Amino acid sequence: MKKTITLAHGNGGRLMHELIESLRLKLSNKILDELSDAAELNVKKGRLSFSTDSYVVKPLFFPGGDIGKLAVCGTVNDISMKGAEPLFISLAFIVEEGFEFADFERIVQSIKKEAAKAGVSVVTGDIKVVEKGAAEGIYINTSGIGVINYPKSIGAKVKAAERIVINGPIAEHGMAILNAREKFGFGSKIKSDCRSLNREVGRCLLASKRISLMRDLTRGGLATVLNEIAHSSGLGIEVDEKDIPIRTDVRKMCDILGFDPLYVANEGKFVCFVDTKDALKVKKALGREAKIIGKVSSKHKREVYLNTAIGSQRILPMLEHDQLPRIC
Amino acid sequence: MKKTITLAHGNGGRLMHELIESLRLKLSNKILDELSDAAELNVKKGRLSFSTDSYVVKPLFFPGGDIGKLAVCGTVNDISMKGAEPLFISLAFIVEEGFEFADFERIVQSIKKEAAKAGVSVVTGDIKVVEKGAAEGIYINTSGIGVINYPKSIGAKVKAAERIVINGPIAEHGMAILNAREKFGFGSKIKSDCRSLNREVGRCLLASKRISLMRDLTRGGLATVLNEIAHSSGLGIEVDEKDIPIRTDVRKMCDILGFDPLYVANEGKFVCFVDTKDALKVKKALGREAKIIGKVSSKHKREVYLNTAIGSQRILPMLEHDQLPRIC
Repeated sequence: MKKTITLAHGNGGRLMHELIESLRLKLSNKILDELSDAAELNVKKGRLSFSTDSYVVKPLFFPGGDIGKLAVCGTVNDISMKGAEPLFISLAFIVEEGFEFADFERIVQSIKKEAAKAGVSVVTGDIKVVEKGAAEGIYINTSGIGVINYPKSIGAKVKAAERIVINGPIAEHGMAILNAREKFGFGSKIKSDCRSLNREVGRCLLASKRISLMRDLTRGGLATVLNEIAHSSGLGIEVDEKDIPIRTDVRKMCDILGFDPLYVANEGKFVCFVDTKDALKVKKALGREAKIIGKVSSKHKREVYLNTAIGSQRILPMLEHDQLPRIC
Repeated sequence: MKKTITLAHGNGGRLMHELIESLRLKLSNKILDELSDAAELNVKKGRLSFSTDSYVVKPLFFPGGDIGKLAVCGTVNDISMKGAEPLFISLAFIVEEGFEFADFERIVQSIKKEAAKAGVSVVTGDIKVVEKGAAEGIYINTSGIGVINYPKSIGAKVKAAERIVINGPIAEHGMAILNAREKFGFGSKIKSDCRSLNREVGRCLLASKRISLMRDLTRGGLATVLNEIAHSSGLGIEVDEKDIPIRTDVRKMCDILGFDPLYVANEGKFVCFVDTKDALKVKKALGREAKIIGKVSSKHKREVYLNTAIGSQRILPMLEHDQLPRIC
């Protein structure tokens, strides 16, 4: 077998069929085994969650994960945020001519491992090869389908007085990527928090039937997500700085480089908006890293307020420019 | 608004939100309007068709279509080939920094138009921006979901003696792309056949309950698809050269450049394998360009035989190398 991927691996001929066959064997399941251009799926219920994301992260391999793991987790998480159980994902590669097979293999193994962990099947896929210089190594798209069993639609408008629960410390993914990309040499313990959240989400859904919204804290971080929610709900949001969890080494790296951790991307963190009555139940369901960090308020319309650790209050705006490109 | 797309359009900040909002307004429908990272869908039946493809066609605009139209048609067609009615698609862009907004807008309008024509809704999406030089203009991934109402699974094994019906002339897409890319200057009437096939497929499904398999003739063309089917079924396939439709100008261009039209990609053509009894019904349902071009045979196992126009017979092999990159 050739050591690098060539244009012929994407042109419909024998090499492409061999490559697809080897992928099928690695990711094998009953549906993928049919190897047609579309998968036939059986779903029990009529409410589905459907999501897509392309992944262009740089570097491809980083502490805590790689583009393959990220491509599974990211889509599993988006599906989960609708209160759904993710079941099926698609997998589409855009590969640069000359990409090393060894790296491709490592990424495929990582996809396989994370899909098994999250309990999702890769049921359909695609591979395109572009000329040397027309992509940077490899880009991946995953789309996915989940089944919603929760009685109400999650993602509808939040209500005043609802509490905001977060499942753990922020800013790890963005700082791990930056550290790996720029070789800053900050402590090797700074790892991406990249992980599939469907099990944690499942526990929340069992713990309370009063969840109105869940959102993972990816591009733009916690502050951006809260701004989006404040804006779309027409209500205000208040969060307490002292309750927002963050590891000391991550905070230090942010301080030194001038990043506000509230705007740094995560890949394994989410917020859950829930009726006050059930906030503690949800926190408990999420485990010891979870915190109640704030609430929805009818005061500051469409704005996010931070009660700072020193007792003052400031607005967290929607940022314009100074965020990191290609962190996912 | 800026005239080109910048990295900030993909980093989670204000510019990205503005861009997504403008896309939402253009492609508006009830589900997309919720603007969350996943869509909640309601489907009536429990059998779904799910497919994904990335599009890296070069050039982005070509006679008969563009990357946007192609991204809708390609996925609609893959879904349709399972005997499904395509309902929902996702839309994920990877854009190169500096890409002209005017071109982006043209592509989005083309997506909108083709989605309306095919009757599918864009319900979820994503946009990533990579640095100048890390992609060639724009790449698009679409995934899609359809509902299968046909009583049996389409794409199961074909049976000996089944007839092969094609819906029209071959090799137009590949030759149109090559003509546009290399500026060969062949007749301007050579246009891509890029179109959504779901209505044609729907008519076939109504015409016969004895269809075993349908496949669109994309990368690798008719000969490659027939080889795949012969291989996976363990049976042989025989086709008659004189019955395979091809436009004279397309055939001439193939002859001059040394391409075998049987291996050239199409984006609006498919074959339907159907019981002998219903072959004429299916041909009729597909209209005047359709032809019955051959049959499944229990003689030549796993091979495709062409009965040539001059009365001889030759094997059509699975090709290795000499196909065109980036035609879809």
